[in-house]
Amino acid sequence: MKVKDRFYRTLWPEYDRGAVAIIDQTVLPHQLVVRELETVAAAADAIVTMRARGAPLIGVTAAYGVALAMTQDDSDQALEAAVALLSHTRPTAVNLAWALARMQKVLAKLPPNERCEAAWREAAAMADEDVATNQAIGRHGLGLLREKQRATGRPLRILTHCNAGWLATIDWGTALAPIFLAHDAGIPLHVWVDETRPRNQGLLTAWELAGHGVPHTVIADNAGGLLMQRGEVDLVLVGADRVSRAGDVCNKIGTYLKALAARANEVPFYAALPSSTIDWRIADALKEIPIEERSGEEMKSLNARLEDGRIARVQIMGPETEVANPAFDLTPAALVTGIITERGISAPRELASLYPEWA
Amino acid sequence: MKVKDRFYRTLWPEYDRGAVAIIDQTVLPHQLVVRELETVAAAADAIVTMRARGAPLIGVTAAYGVALAMTQDDSDQALEAAVALLSHTRPTAVNLAWALARMQKVLAKLPPNERCEAAWREAAAMADEDVATNQAIGRHGLGLLREKQRATGRPLRILTHCNAGWLATIDWGTALAPIFLAHDAGIPLHVWVDETRPRNQGLLTAWELAGHGVPHTVIADNAGGLLMQRGEVDLVLVGADRVSRAGDVCNKIGTYLKALAARANEVPFYAALPSSTIDWRIADALKEIPIEERSGEEMKSLNARLEDGRIARVQIMGPETEVANPAFDLTPAALVTGIITERGISAPRELASLYPEWA
Repeated sequence: MKVKDRFYRTLWPEYDRGAVAIIDQTVLPHQLVVRELETVAAAADAIVTMRARGAPLIGVTAAYGVALAMTQDDSDQALEAAVALLSHTRPTAVNLAWALARMQKVLAKLPPNERCEAAWREAAAMADEDVATNQAIGRHGLGLLREKQRATGRPLRILTHCNAGWLATIDWGTALAPIFLAHDAGIPLHVWVDETRPRNQGLLTAWELAGHGVPHTVIADNAGGLLMQRGEVDLVLVGADRVSRAGDVCNKIGTYLKALAARANEVPFYAALPSSTIDWRIADALKEIPIEERSGEEMKSLNARLEDGRIARVQIMGPETEVANPAFDLTPAALVTGIITERGISAPRELASLYPEWA
Repeated sequence: MKVKDRFYRTLWPEYDRGAVAIIDQTVLPHQLVVRELETVAAAADAIVTMRARGAPLIGVTAAYGVALAMTQDDSDQALEAAVALLSHTRPTAVNLAWALARMQKVLAKLPPNERCEAAWREAAAMADEDVATNQAIGRHGLGLLREKQRATGRPLRILTHCNAGWLATIDWGTALAPIFLAHDAGIPLHVWVDETRPRNQGLLTAWELAGHGVPHTVIADNAGGLLMQRGEVDLVLVGADRVSRAGDVCNKIGTYLKALAARANEVPFYAALPSSTIDWRIADALKEIPIEERSGEEMKSLNARLEDGRIARVQIMGPETEVANPAFDLTPAALVTGIITERGISAPRELASLYPEWA
């Protein structure tokens, strides 16, 4: 997407330097900083620290991490070590495991001296597929938003949580792709943006929406219930980090609370995601999907602008404060109106009808 | 309650100076600062800026505000002006209106030259009554916590939202009073403390609990749903800013989301409040209780500790960010297990059985 006068992806290969460039999402929206990853360790670190974040993007970042590893050492051991290192970076999103399995499948069967080239090609293909997939999600979602807006007869009010925009993918985003396309198509809409503590990814969403000219308002995570009580939300639209075969949606912590409020106030709740986010092996999502517990430091400090204009890490809680920081929760299929994927929109329990190869 | 080696109330008269001292809650928990209010305008400002906050405390602060006004001018006009000024400081909590009506009733019928003395006496009586009321709430709640803890057979895990502790009252608190008493009685418990964006009153709660030695963990407002899904919450216990005759609970924004999660996961949900918080005139809480919309600046900036140890106001969103900041929401009686008042615990729809004078 465009940032001011330039077009960006969130990640791109810099072939001449044997490196991968990423937009550092830990300093956005305060600063737009591009960082180069030159090793698989740097790629793993970028995922752990959430410089690269969002289920689809961490999948592609991991794929490029394997390519960086193969550039330095194309042995079986190096391939296995790279996959092992990257697979332990984040436990919840399944796109990471999906991307690594795909890279491993392609590379393991090749002679070592062909792996480097194949790895860069495969990673690039995955990045391009992500863009095409998100465009398809956007088109399906656009139809939904058009229909809903026509039914309301005024600007459609959408609530979103976390960032499932182009920053969470290579381009376009998942939940935001339909919103960008709808805005471009002249469909009037307004987006309520959950701040999404503790990492405030809502500010990334607001930054994206502002960059694209989409009307929006940032709210505290606490506010969505009141807005729905008042009838000020027409639709909830979020991304996902892992979806079970049964249509249970694991997404950023707090999503479940909005889904409960949506149900209580008869607001439709949709999740938009590429099919690589669906984990067809999962039967009981609450028991089987590991919920990442992240560092308490994310609760206690944040990046802020000081009076003198500098951006700095500041402490909002004392070091002695006891905190917990689970990163995801689970919205049961019963609370989900529909799931938007690249193949169309389905009821959560009918996902397999769109993916007969998994039925 | 004690802070380190001294005993404090949140507010006390300094008769020799014709002033009222308050703990400034906008700089807690970073700093403990006491400020003196010398005029009714200063009292009104302390309520608006939330230096004094919490439904019970703003009621008593307003009462002392009237006393400060009467010290300077004991005329009918001054009394009316003071009440008008103070009544417009915060719209949602009903304790403010209750306290001002009580002061007006006592003072209006007196000759002006008796009003100053009567005002200080009445305000002091209200402060003392608040302490006694909260102790009574604490005793009733203690019975409930004891029973629940015995039933679970392990430390009782309570989730609370915002700050309904001694800082929100003159002493003891409402929702925290039972917790302090239970802890003192040797009942093992642990408190999940919602951060409570945007003003982070959860940090006040954590500060109180730490000061009293009560085990607790601060969590993002987003996390409570997951904890309840996992069966890690035995009871939700919050305060209230206004409760309808029918038992609908208006409380800090985000409370409703926790009540929805509690119901979905069969966790009992209790609100603790003095009867001055009950607005017996309210029939339809969602339509009739005004929800305060506070400044967007509260979303965009906060007090934090810089690297050099200084406490400063820092910006977490750019000035151009569009924000909304509604301060309260409404938990319908259907989601409330019980209401704890100074006269006992009742089902929300049976409040009038404890208050036959309002039946």
